[in-house]
Amino acid sequence: MPQKIIIDTDPGIDDAMAILFALKAPELEVVGLTTIYGNVHTDLATQNALRLVELAHRPDIPVAHGADLPLVTPLKQVAHHVHGVDGFGNTNQPPPRGKPIDPSAAQFIVEMVMAQPGEITLVSTGPLTNLALALALEPRLIEAVAGVVLMGGAAFVNGNVTPAAEANIYKDPHAADVVFTAGWPLTMVGLDVTTKIVMTSDYIADLRSAGTRTTHFIDTINPFYMTYYCQTYHGLNGMHVHDPAAIAYVVDPSLFATLSAPVRVITDGIATGLTLPDCHQDWDIPNGWTDQPLAQICIDVDAARLLNLYRSYITRPD
Amino acid sequence: MPQKIIIDTDPGIDDAMAILFALKAPELEVVGLTTIYGNVHTDLATQNALRLVELAHRPDIPVAHGADLPLVTPLKQVAHHVHGVDGFGNTNQPPPRGKPIDPSAAQFIVEMVMAQPGEITLVSTGPLTNLALALALEPRLIEAVAGVVLMGGAAFVNGNVTPAAEANIYKDPHAADVVFTAGWPLTMVGLDVTTKIVMTSDYIADLRSAGTRTTHFIDTINPFYMTYYCQTYHGLNGMHVHDPAAIAYVVDPSLFATLSAPVRVITDGIATGLTLPDCHQDWDIPNGWTDQPLAQICIDVDAARLLNLYRSYITRPD
Repeated sequence: MPQKIIIDTDPGIDDAMAILFALKAPELEVVGLTTIYGNVHTDLATQNALRLVELAHRPDIPVAHGADLPLVTPLKQVAHHVHGVDGFGNTNQPPPRGKPIDPSAAQFIVEMVMAQPGEITLVSTGPLTNLALALALEPRLIEAVAGVVLMGGAAFVNGNVTPAAEANIYKDPHAADVVFTAGWPLTMVGLDVTTKIVMTSDYIADLRSAGTRTTHFIDTINPFYMTYYCQTYHGLNGMHVHDPAAIAYVVDPSLFATLSAPVRVITDGIATGLTLPDCHQDWDIPNGWTDQPLAQICIDVDAARLLNLYRSYITRPD
Repeated sequence: MPQKIIIDTDPGIDDAMAILFALKAPELEVVGLTTIYGNVHTDLATQNALRLVELAHRPDIPVAHGADLPLVTPLKQVAHHVHGVDGFGNTNQPPPRGKPIDPSAAQFIVEMVMAQPGEITLVSTGPLTNLALALALEPRLIEAVAGVVLMGGAAFVNGNVTPAAEANIYKDPHAADVVFTAGWPLTMVGLDVTTKIVMTSDYIADLRSAGTRTTHFIDTINPFYMTYYCQTYHGLNGMHVHDPAAIAYVVDPSLFATLSAPVRVITDGIATGLTLPDCHQDWDIPNGWTDQPLAQICIDVDAARLLNLYRSYITRPD
């Protein structure tokens, strides 16, 4: 039986690469997409999510429109400089024919998970506002989800938008702290591992040679993202693989090494968005991590095996 | 010519071990001790510093009394549970005969450094209040010091008083942020390296066999500290070597591997006392690390060679 997942997402180029990967993975059944701001505004994320399920000939997969704003802080700049103003590398994709379903993303998550307790894993590839709102609507989600796997955070390395913060956490740090301290089975797939996975131009070219609609689309949207990475990370000659890594974790957790520690998110000051684990958990004086639930933190990855897995699935016939 | 140093210190068991090490090192000339709260209150730190120079038959070395309180935050609990109520493991040492000099620690640092520009390195083994006050009294210190070497902080590992904070930084985070951003030649010898250096009971027993007044004193004050470590860090069977590592850096920097990065100290919230480096230094949007000076951060240490160096110096005849 494939693992049912809902992907909460802000497509976004690597979000698209993650969603298309999930749709091809025999271990997964995508039961819905929920949308969030981040790489683009939420309205466009919803349009792009609809476009992706249509591209994959899966218009049956529901798309629910999510929060337009963070829980507490003002909306920060969306990542047009990384993903293009259209979220797909400025490639003039056709608009989708479909529409989002009526319930909000948070309501959809609650309804789906509570109707099938223990069966659905939430995979987040954007800011965590929808997941925090879903918890507020229905605290029993904590016991009813099969798991929560999020791309975000940086435990033992610098962030990617400030020295402290990874982008998804930075854009709604309050929601992230709610999600990390909720007490559900949570796995963080953060920059500690995603920056160890690099797709080079050669790798993308190799995908293209599969000649499918999916690989053509990935090849089309990719150059803008690749250019950003090569300009920002001098000498990388490729791009870090963020969102597909979260999908890869659900497909095969053995790709990753993890440790267990409570994680708190800093919500104010210059360290806003920092995801700080407590690896010691034995202190003379109680602190903000005391009695908080453990998260699984990915700290290493078999990048070569992950890249082989991605290629073998994404190049399957459409 | 030996390197002149002023040690700013809160003795404290490992402070004592650091000071006695410095007094035996032929590469160093200790031109003064300045005192600070931390392991004990400043009054007792001053008494203990006087006691140490008398023990070493060096009552000529001036001791200047430092700040009794942090710059901004209230005084936090001193570390009686680590160092004993007397700072020397509850061993009933005799009181000193001498007295501190008249100038405050900060004033003494200014006078000494400005009188001998380029010649004096400040070595801190406690909270950084005195160094921040000295900078406030005389900003030209930045050019006049030979260097600043501090035991404190945790760049890529958890703290030792909270998941975020090392004790010296935690006790005056505002002063620490002043010191890290001042722009003088600064080296951080933090938990990243000091927790890699472990003195076992056997190591201390080996020191004792030298049979000098110095090694007898170290052996006497040590059990309380060792007991704390063995109870707190299960399975360590020894103690981390914090303050002597800062002295070792001045004696022989080649013991350490370092990287250069600006460091900011978090001064509020659950991450108070965090020393967060920016290893990337190339951001789309300016942040709290932008245009801040570089610190040298010790990230690795040849612990075996450092322990050999310590033993070879501390066991010299008194």
